Amino acid sequence: MGKQTKTAISPTRSEDYPEWYQQVVKASDIAENSPVRGCMVIKPWGYALWENIKHELDALFKETGVKNAYFPLFIPLSFFNKEAEHVEGFAKECAVVTHHRLEQSADSGLVPAGPLSEPLVVRPTSETIIGESFSKWVSSYRDLPVLINQWANVVRWEMRTRIFLRTSEFLWQEGHTAHATENEAIERTHMMLDVYAKFAEEYMAMPVIKGRKSPMERFPGAVDTLCIEAMMQDRKALQSGTSHFLGQNFAKSSNIKFQSADEKEIYAWTTSWGVSTRLIGGLIMIHGDDDGLILPPRIASSHVVLMPIIRKPEDREKVMTYVNSLARDLRDVSYHSRKIEVEIDDRDMGGARGWDWIKKGIPIRVEIGPRDIDNDSVCAARRDKSHSEKAFIKRDQFIKEMPAMLDDIQRNLFHRASDFAKHHTVSVDEKEAFNMFFTPEDKDKPEIHGGFVLAHWCGSSKCELKIKDDFSVTIRCIPFENEKDKGNCICCGEKSNQRVVFAKAY
Amino acid sequence: MGKQTKTAISPTRSEDYPEWYQQVVKASDIAENSPVRGCMVIKPWGYALWENIKHELDALFKETGVKNAYFPLFIPLSFFNKEAEHVEGFAKECAVVTHHRLEQSADSGLVPAGPLSEPLVVRPTSETIIGESFSKWVSSYRDLPVLINQWANVVRWEMRTRIFLRTSEFLWQEGHTAHATENEAIERTHMMLDVYAKFAEEYMAMPVIKGRKSPMERFPGAVDTLCIEAMMQDRKALQSGTSHFLGQNFAKSSNIKFQSADEKEIYAWTTSWGVSTRLIGGLIMIHGDDDGLILPPRIASSHVVLMPIIRKPEDREKVMTYVNSLARDLRDVSYHSRKIEVEIDDRDMGGARGWDWIKKGIPIRVEIGPRDIDNDSVCAARRDKSHSEKAFIKRDQFIKEMPAMLDDIQRNLFHRASDFAKHHTVSVDEKEAFNMFFTPEDKDKPEIHGGFVLAHWCGSSKCELKIKDDFSVTIRCIPFENEKDKGNCICCGEKSNQRVVFAKAY
Repeated sequence: MGKQTKTAISPTRSEDYPEWYQQVVKASDIAENSPVRGCMVIKPWGYALWENIKHELDALFKETGVKNAYFPLFIPLSFFNKEAEHVEGFAKECAVVTHHRLEQSADSGLVPAGPLSEPLVVRPTSETIIGESFSKWVSSYRDLPVLINQWANVVRWEMRTRIFLRTSEFLWQEGHTAHATENEAIERTHMMLDVYAKFAEEYMAMPVIKGRKSPMERFPGAVDTLCIEAMMQDRKALQSGTSHFLGQNFAKSSNIKFQSADEKEIYAWTTSWGVSTRLIGGLIMIHGDDDGLILPPRIASSHVVLMPIIRKPEDREKVMTYVNSLARDLRDVSYHSRKIEVEIDDRDMGGARGWDWIKKGIPIRVEIGPRDIDNDSVCAARRDKSHSEKAFIKRDQFIKEMPAMLDDIQRNLFHRASDFAKHHTVSVDEKEAFNMFFTPEDKDKPEIHGGFVLAHWCGSSKCELKIKDDFSVTIRCIPFENEKDKGNCICCGEKSNQRVVFAKAY
Repeated sequence: MGKQTKTAISPTRSEDYPEWYQQVVKASDIAENSPVRGCMVIKPWGYALWENIKHELDALFKETGVKNAYFPLFIPLSFFNKEAEHVEGFAKECAVVTHHRLEQSADSGLVPAGPLSEPLVVRPTSETIIGESFSKWVSSYRDLPVLINQWANVVRWEMRTRIFLRTSEFLWQEGHTAHATENEAIERTHMMLDVYAKFAEEYMAMPVIKGRKSPMERFPGAVDTLCIEAMMQDRKALQSGTSHFLGQNFAKSSNIKFQSADEKEIYAWTTSWGVSTRLIGGLIMIHGDDDGLILPPRIASSHVVLMPIIRKPEDREKVMTYVNSLARDLRDVSYHSRKIEVEIDDRDMGGARGWDWIKKGIPIRVEIGPRDIDNDSVCAARRDKSHSEKAFIKRDQFIKEMPAMLDDIQRNLFHRASDFAKHHTVSVDEKEAFNMFFTPEDKDKPEIHGGFVLAHWCGSSKCELKIKDDFSVTIRCIPFENEKDKGNCICCGEKSNQRVVFAKAY
């Protein structure tokens, strides 16, 4: 490259947001589409991000007493079919295994053979297969609670896919718990939502609204679905995590029963909760800018890149010795649950090298040439600031201040996203204003609309559906933190007790 | 329980080794069979073991420059079909997805619908689908080497399954690398075998023989397959890890080409290498005894269990306070890459509690009652010693010596396994003696036979097959560390340059 166009990513966010997203994915080298319909390849820079997300979330889960386990990829059709709403919700988009070998046919090459007596569904979620295990594990109240999580791949045969946001196969965690009382299960549902909100805000620097889904938007088979919703930079909502109170629905269909202390036989109350690689899509859309990805330090694939400047061959040894020693010292520094992670990039490719790392979103870039070494200093740039803003810092000070600098970037990203979300969240009481808010300001940029509306809703599915039909806007959640003011439904004008969050959504 | 039969596991190893194995799996609560044919449920105590194996192996991989990524679960049939030997090797045992939804039929309930235009194979291994990505990633010698690993689930439709040892779905890692020269790829193949051997011996306390498979036993499509083989307590061999040099076979079928420095177009040389949850089966069989599982400390699911002894309710607070404080202090102690992990078990179930932990194989068990507290000491027992051997140790000394005690257990387990393997490995030069060695000493215990035989082999598949047919004995490997003595093939009497390892195997 050398010469840089105005921005590293083209188109920009305001020119074409969906295409900008695809170009950021490509330019940051985190993932690519695969030849398998709707399935993605997560490349090392993207997978490292997922590993960090896993590592941190896993620790938060374990703090609450959850243990990891692993259950089969395949669900027998008969199991899948046990909970009526559940199968209704997932049957339309699942991969079905019908054969267990391949054989050469006379005319058409390799064909499926060995038909299975019962087809197997590749898990879209595991309530039914895990429920089967729970039914064997639980017989007395002493066996409860059961607090299990699994990190796994799941498959939902999506027709329109978008990398990270909606893929046929994705990686996720699914927690499944069983409890002796309804209250305890409800508490667990809220506890895990709180874990998700904490993780989103403190680790991903992603401000979220916690709330409850409307009955129409519930997980198939759930009594109550809680969620966190985040605002992307096109002002659409991304559902970023859900926690379901399943009541006794799945316990009844899977026969999870226990004998209580007073010797009654009772169905357990269960929960399930999950987040997925979709979080990475959210991360791109909430923090990325027209130069590419921006990674929050606490989950960044790596923290700092050292770029030696070697103009003359005779400088190489001196510069590399200095760079390697700096890398060693940095890697000794603790940053939250990790050590500082350092990349060394000595590729000879001019200015394109720095732009490569800008596009990849690494929090801190450092250039080190012979003159810097003579000053015992480094030239550092932060991804949350302008790419031309560079600071010369003494080597030892740089090492010492690294954790504080990373925390400052983390905070900046959160505040920037939080300010954006606040700026684009409004209370609306008139249908006309509601309509206006969700009408694109510029017809050539239909992606850019208002944001989140807090409006009154009577609670009826009829109004919810009408708004969805009229404006392509859904109730994202009934927020927990909300003044309970009285008003009139934005749709039908009937009485309402509180405002809910309306938005267009991914 | 309270009263204990002679051993905690029945039958014992010498009574019925295969059944002993199943009973250890059950009694240690590490896994269970699932209702899905050949698929297992890995329970928390077993999954923690797998997490530790992953954690340690992953660090060893990363030290060699390998990065993790993730590739699709599904392989289009046409890809799978690209390498002739490969498809030949796997087509007979694979799960095939043929439909992408379910629908209600008039008469037979839910049935597969939405047939796919091209069937998808659930990955049994990922050479072909990863090769497709590599072909896009590699265009110049500057793009090489590509060093990738993925942690994933794979499916091979095994007809006769045994938990951990041979399951239809299993968890594994598969490394895939591409190189600019043949030599570099061969070096990588050996490097990763060395990583496996180091991991087996130093972390799993599992002595292994490193060597090369005979052509007949190679991975389908490989030029050379290296392996580590370990001797179980029934003296059979378990192949515990393989590393394949794939030559240019897969590069040609997947079109992984690069332009060399002198501008020639060349196919890359590739490798692949993997270990799986099978390792856990090996761990059970190599260390377990007639009282259950024995876990090597470096990968143990947890290190020490504290069992408060509370005979009178008024003792509870005093004992639990002491136990909790001890747990806190122990958890602060580093042990290799982890902290000491502590379980507290205050279940009121008499002697059965201690036996529970013996069966689960935790390295150290500690009992703490009011009298111990008065002495400021604990009563500790080690899983590598007799269950009745207990030591009273001052609290602070116990904390301080914990890492050394765990290392001592680790060493003991390795030496015990190593002595056993040496004791049952012999050099044999006569066919009659060979026959005798593999004939069960007791016809009622067909599982108990000789062990490993180092014998001469001419190198022909004919002799290899004849020995397999006659004795159910295979060539486990052509060992690397082997005096190159000349001799005559144990089968045909022709000249041979070295001895190979013959054994019955899993």
